[in-house]
Amino acid sequence: MNESIFILKGNIVYSKSQTELAICEHGYLVCREGKVEGVYQTLPFRLGGTPIRDYGDCLIIPGLVDLHVHAPQYSFRGLGMDMELLEWLETNTFPEEAKFEDIDYAEKSYKIFADNLRRSATARACIFATVHRPATLLLMDMLEKAGLATMVGKVNMDRNCPEYLCEETSESAEETLEWIKDVNHRKYASTRPILTPRFTPSCTDELMEELKKIQMRYELPLQSHLSENQSEIEWVKELCPWSEFYGDAYDRFGLFGADCPTIMAHCVYSGDKEIARMKENGVFIAHCPESNMNLASGIAPVRKYLEEGLNVGLGSDVAGGTTENMFRCMAHAIQASKLRWRIQDERLEALTAEEVFYMATKGGGAFFGKAGSFEEGYEFDAVVLDDVRLAHPQPLDIRSRLERLIYLADEREIRAKYVNGGEIDLS
Amino acid sequence: MNESIFILKGNIVYSKSQTELAICEHGYLVCREGKVEGVYQTLPFRLGGTPIRDYGDCLIIPGLVDLHVHAPQYSFRGLGMDMELLEWLETNTFPEEAKFEDIDYAEKSYKIFADNLRRSATARACIFATVHRPATLLLMDMLEKAGLATMVGKVNMDRNCPEYLCEETSESAEETLEWIKDVNHRKYASTRPILTPRFTPSCTDELMEELKKIQMRYELPLQSHLSENQSEIEWVKELCPWSEFYGDAYDRFGLFGADCPTIMAHCVYSGDKEIARMKENGVFIAHCPESNMNLASGIAPVRKYLEEGLNVGLGSDVAGGTTENMFRCMAHAIQASKLRWRIQDERLEALTAEEVFYMATKGGGAFFGKAGSFEEGYEFDAVVLDDVRLAHPQPLDIRSRLERLIYLADEREIRAKYVNGGEIDLS
Repeated sequence: MNESIFILKGNIVYSKSQTELAICEHGYLVCREGKVEGVYQTLPFRLGGTPIRDYGDCLIIPGLVDLHVHAPQYSFRGLGMDMELLEWLETNTFPEEAKFEDIDYAEKSYKIFADNLRRSATARACIFATVHRPATLLLMDMLEKAGLATMVGKVNMDRNCPEYLCEETSESAEETLEWIKDVNHRKYASTRPILTPRFTPSCTDELMEELKKIQMRYELPLQSHLSENQSEIEWVKELCPWSEFYGDAYDRFGLFGADCPTIMAHCVYSGDKEIARMKENGVFIAHCPESNMNLASGIAPVRKYLEEGLNVGLGSDVAGGTTENMFRCMAHAIQASKLRWRIQDERLEALTAEEVFYMATKGGGAFFGKAGSFEEGYEFDAVVLDDVRLAHPQPLDIRSRLERLIYLADEREIRAKYVNGGEIDLS
Repeated sequence: MNESIFILKGNIVYSKSQTELAICEHGYLVCREGKVEGVYQTLPFRLGGTPIRDYGDCLIIPGLVDLHVHAPQYSFRGLGMDMELLEWLETNTFPEEAKFEDIDYAEKSYKIFADNLRRSATARACIFATVHRPATLLLMDMLEKAGLATMVGKVNMDRNCPEYLCEETSESAEETLEWIKDVNHRKYASTRPILTPRFTPSCTDELMEELKKIQMRYELPLQSHLSENQSEIEWVKELCPWSEFYGDAYDRFGLFGADCPTIMAHCVYSGDKEIARMKENGVFIAHCPESNMNLASGIAPVRKYLEEGLNVGLGSDVAGGTTENMFRCMAHAIQASKLRWRIQDERLEALTAEEVFYMATKGGGAFFGKAGSFEEGYEFDAVVLDDVRLAHPQPLDIRSRLERLIYLADEREIRAKYVNGGEIDLS
């Protein structure tokens, strides 16, 4: 059997646009050389004899994309949730992340994260590690082995954090360079480095300048945090009095998407100027609704970002969020948007199932190029969902089954998963 | 082995008060004649020889209490969630509930509900059925067989609903009487009838008067809905111009807790007068946070109700909520309260893990008498939780393990479940 071309059969669902689903019942999804060749209701004659994996009445959707998740925080998901961002970082996050200097602890912890991400519906993810180079490489080795398509960042932070975790500016830059060399040396197939200054309060101007040099030398994408919490925003104003707005504190160093693809997580309080700059620079927003709830940050005005035509994807933001399950993230996005509409601003309508599905697939997938869809030429990422556990007495159409899965699915529904055309081991 | 007395061994956790957990690590929980005899760190000498079921490092918590759930709506959980209450009732709820006139459909649908409730951490529940007497009895038969402790109501509605579902006033009262006779005839051990006028907009004054007569004759508890949605509240003002506030429209008929235990679901918009009346009458509030989100109702000011000393429990409110999983309900309660604090009213602090655990156990359990705690004399409802699936690299204390379970647990964590001292079949 030549695996360079194969076909999945089932109920194929993907986003045509932000508001419309493409549904092909009992259709054929063709993979050639790791890319989508097409979706067919009737198999073209020329494809006769191609091996078909028949998934019966299952749904087949694009692999989900998690644009923002912290791997080292997976260990304390669901713990210490009675704080806001800055206190939570000091109390929970920094002490836990410090442990990753110990490579044995890192191995134990990252194995749990990598195993669970592998078994989830997530095909692609943009991941924060810690400041530690060896542990970050170990995480990347694990994710590569799992077959997922990820971007992983060694975190940079040289101020406003406990001494046990704080880097010297030059050390932070040098370790980043060494890390990139190590990564290049490893020749990963689907694991890429991404620059990861934690957020403005953690990074001096000098460090930002060094990171910009590294970015230009290696053409690296970048991920960070933006306008998540009001105290954080005030703090950035103090730290960078020259900045017009929080995002401008990245942009002054060229680290706000103008040169290289950039993700900014949260954007709960982005004002008009920040929105305009994100649009101009093509910044990707990672909306993290469960984290917005758990850290009492507020609710990002996602409808506004969609209307403005910004790039928006979803992020689990573990451990601001409690789970890697991106179905839960989609449901939380709808729920948060409804409360925002009701309580805060009736001008921004609630998000629909179609819209959150778009964000969790094609919207976030665009950060990886052509990913998150079954249109021709897209990376072949697919998740086969068997919803038999979620029993119901009445007949349901495909769109309804998808909506139910958004609210109810977890890894038990995943019958198969493909990333870049390769089948993932779900055991 | 004499099963009238037995002992569970494990990490025993229950609410001492709204804000404090009682934790007994590797302790003994003694059941005698279906009631809790006590919790012991060291087994008293007199209990030597009593059979012990050793659950190792598992957590043992009181069975959870769901104060508000609609059994017929379980079939469309997670579906059609893009509407507010009144439109959602017309579009989703009434057409589905009408199907329960067909006893075969009811059997198919209620079996799914009863099976999943049995396998969940819920020990006790207050349940809405439909207007149909035979289907309601069938549901009660199933719940009795499952061994759960429930109160189930044949719904009453004689106005403002589609003709296919609308009862005549006299028919509604007569069917209710017949239903109660049928129930009494069946001599259930743990399944009780509860009067269930759907809500004021669905029930004429005449029907309310008839229900009051039935209540007094049989001393029945009552459940209904209150102040969930602003359009609903306006509507009640129009329908009952003589009422001081929504709750008063029940109280005028004596159906607001003054005589018999009464649950009012939601209370998102209860004003001071309504709160005062609920307090005076001992009304139980069923807070349904996921439903508040999904139907964009708003967020109930639960902190205020707790501070006022009202009786508050939690409700899944399927299918306003999407899941029977009361852990999820606890997490949603915390999350909703944080958003309320941040966006709506900083005077009402967010709920804590301790508080939602209290509401899901002892708080709601009080509606059943002594239930939801491991204090002496309480009904012996216990859930044994094995959190091994939720892997972590670091040691965790019992309180932390409970907090994680609130966010992450589902039926996979349940190793055993007891209701009234009887072990439930989880298969």
